[in-house]
Amino acid sequence: MKKLKERILKDGKSFDGGILKVDSFINHQIDPVLIKSVAMEFVRRFGNLPFTKIITIEASGIAPATMLGYLLEIPVVFVKKAAPKTMENMLVSSVYSYTKDRTYAICVSADFVTPADTFLFIDDFLANGNAALGVEDLVTQGGAKLLGMGFIIEKSFQKGGALLREMQHIQIESLVRVKKLSNDGIEFEED
Amino acid sequence: MKKLKERILKDGKSFDGGILKVDSFINHQIDPVLIKSVAMEFVRRFGNLPFTKIITIEASGIAPATMLGYLLEIPVVFVKKAAPKTMENMLVSSVYSYTKDRTYAICVSADFVTPADTFLFIDDFLANGNAALGVEDLVTQGGAKLLGMGFIIEKSFQKGGALLREMQHIQIESLVRVKKLSNDGIEFEED
Repeated sequence: MKKLKERILKDGKSFDGGILKVDSFINHQIDPVLIKSVAMEFVRRFGNLPFTKIITIEASGIAPATMLGYLLEIPVVFVKKAAPKTMENMLVSSVYSYTKDRTYAICVSADFVTPADTFLFIDDFLANGNAALGVEDLVTQGGAKLLGMGFIIEKSFQKGGALLREMQHIQIESLVRVKKLSNDGIEFEED
Repeated sequence: MKKLKERILKDGKSFDGGILKVDSFINHQIDPVLIKSVAMEFVRRFGNLPFTKIITIEASGIAPATMLGYLLEIPVVFVKKAAPKTMENMLVSSVYSYTKDRTYAICVSADFVTPADTFLFIDDFLANGNAALGVEDLVTQGGAKLLGMGFIIEKSFQKGGALLREMQHIQIESLVRVKKLSNDGIEFEED
């Protein structure tokens, strides 16, 4: 996705250790017009799949998931990172975060993940794939189907992409794939 | 907002103790088409104010804020409830949550809240107003201006509405105002 690559080169900040900061336009301050273009690209890539709902995980996935849900006129479910006191009938899984070096619980109401639902998972980053696997577990627990996973940015030098692509019944799409990040700059995969 | 009232009556669940659950269409599962109508109503109510950015607080505010930012083609900043390790140059405030009976930190990068910015704050609920006051504090710390605050649902039997309306330089709008919630049902204000 050319427009996204250009924006990452213009406003993203890369650092040694594989760090990419896109917090001026994706995950802290959001450019909603770019997010709409991102959502439209997801429509192009996943438009043939018969999913009936989007699923994402708070907080950075909510903007692209909502925009995609709006374009397709289908509901968006967002998985929570802490169980609200008022939530009953929950599905729970756990995710190990390398960034924060801790395991955290994720949860979703079983009312919104049922055998009648087929999902597309949307998130901002694919790195080690742990959050995606946690959501896949929740969808499976609810008896629903997960047909696809779409990411705005994949760090192809981390293991998540290969891990998720082993699940051959799930279509995996990343709008841009980054192969190297350092203080010297950002290198994209050729695709 | 008639469409929103009808949807709350149809899909909302109210309980004794002033509890309203709208998690099937606003704050856990999202109906993005309704959220677009909500955003359009915010455009009508705030369209004359010269704000340049939207500000919201994770996670439930992100969907309506993003949709409004998209309609107006302006950036959306979302305040975080925990400080990411990678964030520098932060503004921090604290919010007391009655629901969770604890005080939590909220933070935003000072890069996105500057004297050049004028904000509209958007959130799903107005109850005691503490989250809104925390965001107002962050905006003030950054030297920015806060011109308006828009809420999807106000619990008018709680003190937040009166508290925020004392700040006469800030326009406060709630799309629906709920005056009573119990196991017997939902009563709206007449407005």
